Amino acid sequence: MSTVAPILLTPGPLTTSARTRRAMMVDWGSWDDSFNQLTARVCQQLVTIINGADSHHCVPLQGSGTFAVEAAIGTLVPRDGHVLVLINGAYGKRLAKICEVLGRRFSTYETAEDQPTTASDVERLLRANPSITHVALIHCETSTGILNPLADISMVVAHHGKGLIIDAMSSFGALPIDAQKIPFDALIAASGKCMEGAPGMGFVFAHKTSLANAAGRSHSLAMDLHDQHAYMAKTGQWRFTPPTHVVAALHEALVQYHEEGGLPGRYKRYAANCQTLLDGMARLGIRSFLPDAIQAPIIVTFHAPKDSRYQFKAFYERVKAKGFILYPGKLTEVETFRVGCIGHVSPHDMQAAVNAIGEVLKEMEVQHF
Amino acid sequence: MSTVAPILLTPGPLTTSARTRRAMMVDWGSWDDSFNQLTARVCQQLVTIINGADSHHCVPLQGSGTFAVEAAIGTLVPRDGHVLVLINGAYGKRLAKICEVLGRRFSTYETAEDQPTTASDVERLLRANPSITHVALIHCETSTGILNPLADISMVVAHHGKGLIIDAMSSFGALPIDAQKIPFDALIAASGKCMEGAPGMGFVFAHKTSLANAAGRSHSLAMDLHDQHAYMAKTGQWRFTPPTHVVAALHEALVQYHEEGGLPGRYKRYAANCQTLLDGMARLGIRSFLPDAIQAPIIVTFHAPKDSRYQFKAFYERVKAKGFILYPGKLTEVETFRVGCIGHVSPHDMQAAVNAIGEVLKEMEVQHF
Ligand SMILES: Cc1ncc(COP(=O)(O)O)c(C=O)c1O
Ligand SMILES: Cc1ncc(COP(=O)(O)O)c(C=O)c1O
Repeated sequence: MSTVAPILLTPGPLTTSARTRRAMMVDWGSWDDSFNQLTARVCQQLVTIINGADSHHCVPLQGSGTFAVEAAIGTLVPRDGHVLVLINGAYGKRLAKICEVLGRRFSTYETAEDQPTTASDVERLLRANPSITHVALIHCETSTGILNPLADISMVVAHHGKGLIIDAMSSFGALPIDAQKIPFDALIAASGKCMEGAPGMGFVFAHKTSLANAAGRSHSLAMDLHDQHAYMAKTGQWRFTPPTHVVAALHEALVQYHEEGGLPGRYKRYAANCQTLLDGMARLGIRSFLPDAIQAPIIVTFHAPKDSRYQFKAFYERVKAKGFILYPGKLTEVETFRVGCIGHVSPHDMQAAVNAIGEVLKEMEVQHF
Repeated sequence: MSTVAPILLTPGPLTTSARTRRAMMVDWGSWDDSFNQLTARVCQQLVTIINGADSHHCVPLQGSGTFAVEAAIGTLVPRDGHVLVLINGAYGKRLAKICEVLGRRFSTYETAEDQPTTASDVERLLRANPSITHVALIHCETSTGILNPLADISMVVAHHGKGLIIDAMSSFGALPIDAQKIPFDALIAASGKCMEGAPGMGFVFAHKTSLANAAGRSHSLAMDLHDQHAYMAKTGQWRFTPPTHVVAALHEALVQYHEEGGLPGRYKRYAANCQTLLDGMARLGIRSFLPDAIQAPIIVTFHAPKDSRYQFKAFYERVKAKGFILYPGKLTEVETFRVGCIGHVSPHDMQAAVNAIGEVLKEMEVQHF
């Protein structure tokens, strides 16, 4: 390994700034007022990003993003609810798996991995299945990088009077979502994605009325968002020990988020990262999996070279030795690899990554793309 | 606030060493081999502390300690099981609450907060209730600092052929527990306690056979320890994004644990911390709540002075201004406060804390104890 830590081009954990990591150099008491204020400021800033302070509570939760997704479904979908899960990748499948394990009734609608679910699909499905109470979907399906048309779908769901649960894990903070225009019961994200914090906590923006009606419904003590929120509202504290260093890092990451100009600034940098990557890889002859129109500037899936001299593991190790950590593909049918555009990285870093990839392919004598 | 961060005399989050915190200055890729090796080394070292490598798997879990406790009960107690919960404080009550929320049948046996459960209590209860399948208890009940006689109780439970679930959150690594002498299904602890890591992950030592029989039993996807273990055994990776910085901190904290002489060294320091605290507070006239014989060297509960000039909040703020964070009491009947003995602190620090407390009581003109 080189002495300089490699840049992570993975969609969380991702590269954080030294400033964010330095915020973890302090031990905070979880009962202490100063820490409570830190938590309150983090939650208040997060909910402001989606313009949701009037309509939604930000409920932070210990654990990875999946914990927060499960908590949202377990707390906000009644035990006799029926969830329509929209799937075009691995994280959509995980939503269905969560419903299954929790014993919530669910139906799935699956499209190909390069095909967004459309609002008219949802319209048709809701008409055909009046027992459905909630629709759950992935905003940016990180397994490919595809963007689903959230705004259009949310209109259909609201028109039918159903609840909406949005896994916005890899898009929150980078792609605009306005809670006053997109009605939803829950939107879920985590510290270690586009906020560029350290991983270790998720958060759910829960509609105030829906959350108030959810007392005693959760299948789990630790993942009961109603209880988590009620306790925090009363005491200012987390119910169970918070990941104090991760909270402090997120707080510092939010300062930098605002310094960058908030969402427009972050979006602009990620879009430039993505464009630099796409252009550079195209010059190398490596094709991206998705058409531009549905490619979110979050993570890009590339077709693996069709050359027996290419082998992901060796490719990965060589690119890592040059200072960049790539991500394996997550498609079953086609061989791919992925490169993240998010994190504390610039178009300059993306170009350097492309250069490293080009050099490695040359070293490996890969010729057919 | 002073410019120097205060010393945390709280039972987790606690004071960590600068070396441990510095280990969080690196971003690790969660898919990367180097990180998988870090996780593997952490798990292997943890299980060695209880001499459990032959009999138990160490299954790490994202989230706070309560998440790991809930995961252990949800994964290892069959859905038609019946748990006898031994209670003498708030964390014992939480075990019962978890069983209730999970819908596991349970019975409780509660003793006073200054009275350990005894092996003969358990013998009697198991004789009277043959439907009980598991006994769950707290090793060191952190709400007072009381130590329950784990070894004796474990013998009775094993003799009756029942499973044992041990919440050793605040004792693991400081008080000796030998998995070859104390039979158990699950023993639960977390990163931010006597290992002196940052909070953000728990771990469960699960008996290999019990875990192997637990497929598909969990009430939760995120907290399914069977699934978590199976995936990690196959891939070397965590199922969902790990709190990478917290794992790296725990790895570094374990290096220091071994440098200190492992468990005997850590026990010795904590015992000296506790004795310094008890002696110093006695000299100030402040009485501890528990008799010495059942006082674990983890956290000490003190009676609040019986003087109207004493008021916890003001006392706390003044002691904090002198550099030490104390902990509120957790007893309903008597007014108390608590001082932790664990973390990267020495008898010298404990004496300084006692001195600060003495000065504050003088400043507040508190006279009656
Ligand atoms: C869209 C989406 N949903 C859910 C998750 C799961 O999050 P975690 O791995 O933190 O549990 C991810 C992680 O990348 C994601 O991208
Ligand atoms: C004995 C015991 N059990 C459980 C817990 C809960 O752990 P957490 O607050 O990390 O959820 C604690 C926390 O101090 C504890 O001391």
